[in-house]
Amino acid sequence: MADIATRSEHRCCGGTLGFHEHESEALGLPARFALFRPGTARGASRPPALFCLAGLTCDETTFATKGNALRFAAAHGLMLVFPDTSPRRAGVPGEDEDWDLGTGAGFYLDATAEPWRTHYRMGSYVNDELPALVEARFGAAPGRRGIMGHSMGGHGALVLALRDPERWHSVSALAPIAHPAAVPWGHKAFGAYLGPDRDGWAAHDATLLLRAGHTHPTPILVDQGDADQFLSEQLRPDALAEAAEAAGQKLRLRRHAGYDHSYWFIQSVIEDHVAHHARLLRG
Amino acid sequence: MADIATRSEHRCCGGTLGFHEHESEALGLPARFALFRPGTARGASRPPALFCLAGLTCDETTFATKGNALRFAAAHGLMLVFPDTSPRRAGVPGEDEDWDLGTGAGFYLDATAEPWRTHYRMGSYVNDELPALVEARFGAAPGRRGIMGHSMGGHGALVLALRDPERWHSVSALAPIAHPAAVPWGHKAFGAYLGPDRDGWAAHDATLLLRAGHTHPTPILVDQGDADQFLSEQLRPDALAEAAEAAGQKLRLRRHAGYDHSYWFIQSVIEDHVAHHARLLRG
Repeated sequence: MADIATRSEHRCCGGTLGFHEHESEALGLPARFALFRPGTARGASRPPALFCLAGLTCDETTFATKGNALRFAAAHGLMLVFPDTSPRRAGVPGEDEDWDLGTGAGFYLDATAEPWRTHYRMGSYVNDELPALVEARFGAAPGRRGIMGHSMGGHGALVLALRDPERWHSVSALAPIAHPAAVPWGHKAFGAYLGPDRDGWAAHDATLLLRAGHTHPTPILVDQGDADQFLSEQLRPDALAEAAEAAGQKLRLRRHAGYDHSYWFIQSVIEDHVAHHARLLRG
Repeated sequence: MADIATRSEHRCCGGTLGFHEHESEALGLPARFALFRPGTARGASRPPALFCLAGLTCDETTFATKGNALRFAAAHGLMLVFPDTSPRRAGVPGEDEDWDLGTGAGFYLDATAEPWRTHYRMGSYVNDELPALVEARFGAAPGRRGIMGHSMGGHGALVLALRDPERWHSVSALAPIAHPAAVPWGHKAFGAYLGPDRDGWAAHDATLLLRAGHTHPTPILVDQGDADQFLSEQLRPDALAEAAEAAGQKLRLRRHAGYDHSYWFIQSVIEDHVAHHARLLRG
């Protein structure tokens, strides 16, 4: 496990927030993440880690800065981990041309198609490498991990938890891209990263995973604003709810009148998400 | 009173956050501000407004985005007003060259020296024009106003409240520039905006105002991190505390071990500041 460079560190809400960089094996590139360690008031020397996945165009600073989650993580004694949203400077032609493909748009999967497959491996990075790193190097509790995310990050949280419920013990999402194989953002990203054969897409789509019988042993919390500008074209929580119902997956989908897709929505419901994970992870 | 253009509006924490632009009479230029209106759960049809002044390099979005104050304003039924930190595109030669003078560094005063005096009038803008505007156009309670700020904004809050305690009914500051006439940031800004005659600086320095007998009828809350990189060279809360003591001004100066100058510090203590103002404004 390579060295970790701490770029800056700040006391916050009785704990410590750090911005870090390391050489990622999964990505084959330097990668940045932010990590909040709660104070020790709750007594747990090894706090469970809650991974917070951001959406398109974001980086490792966005959810930490705009989500307002730190105070609640401190109160519940949870660590927060904020990965970046894609590899950076991977050298793939065109990766910086579109805001919804390439840099800032890794979709939390391992690309299988050229020219993306060498470095665009955010699936392995978030699912395997980063949990091992925060448990080995930052004292996160081994074997107790939660995952949540916003938009593209909500997609990532749902898919990783449904694919590997032994690894992720709690899951929630805010305005997730809940059925990417059926919407323009997903068509573009999956077509590039996974290739045109849509059979391979199903393993990266929360709604299709539920339809195929993948479930999570805990209830899934999803919040969605009904004034979200991407709701009907890109997010499709209705499809997720229908698939969950058919699969017997407990899903609490809350709709919020007048709320949009922004972090102003996220910060309005984040307290409940952190509490949801704390209940399941510290329970 | 000119038209107000709403650039965007978001539901947040049961209220509404808007980003607005208008033609400022005080500045003689377009000016932007953000404004949070709480929901009506607290019953006050006209909520008191708490003005939140940001520091050097910031704009009207910074304190709103990073301060984590909205949820507490919503809980207490307060409006929040976030002005910009200077005029923009005033056309003063060199105004964009330094981060601590000109654009982003208005110091919440009316410049008296050329070439700044025509547009650099953030004192009148924040003290007079913006309160009148939010009371006339956004339903803020007339005659009940609080003011707080960070760093340069802490300087602004303290000075405006000490100069005009009839106008500002509650005041607090986070890591304020508490004695600008005695520190490099103040020397540079006051020397440019007010000219080299230091006698004129005293009316814009919280410590010197206290020494001259200006006090505020309410207790002043000030929070300061003891790992703040600007503490001894630029902020000088010790001088403020000494002057308050001599003047009989009630001042609660809290020092926080390990905290720096960032918004990670602000969000760690913001709940107490909003509560301080709510107690005095609604109480």
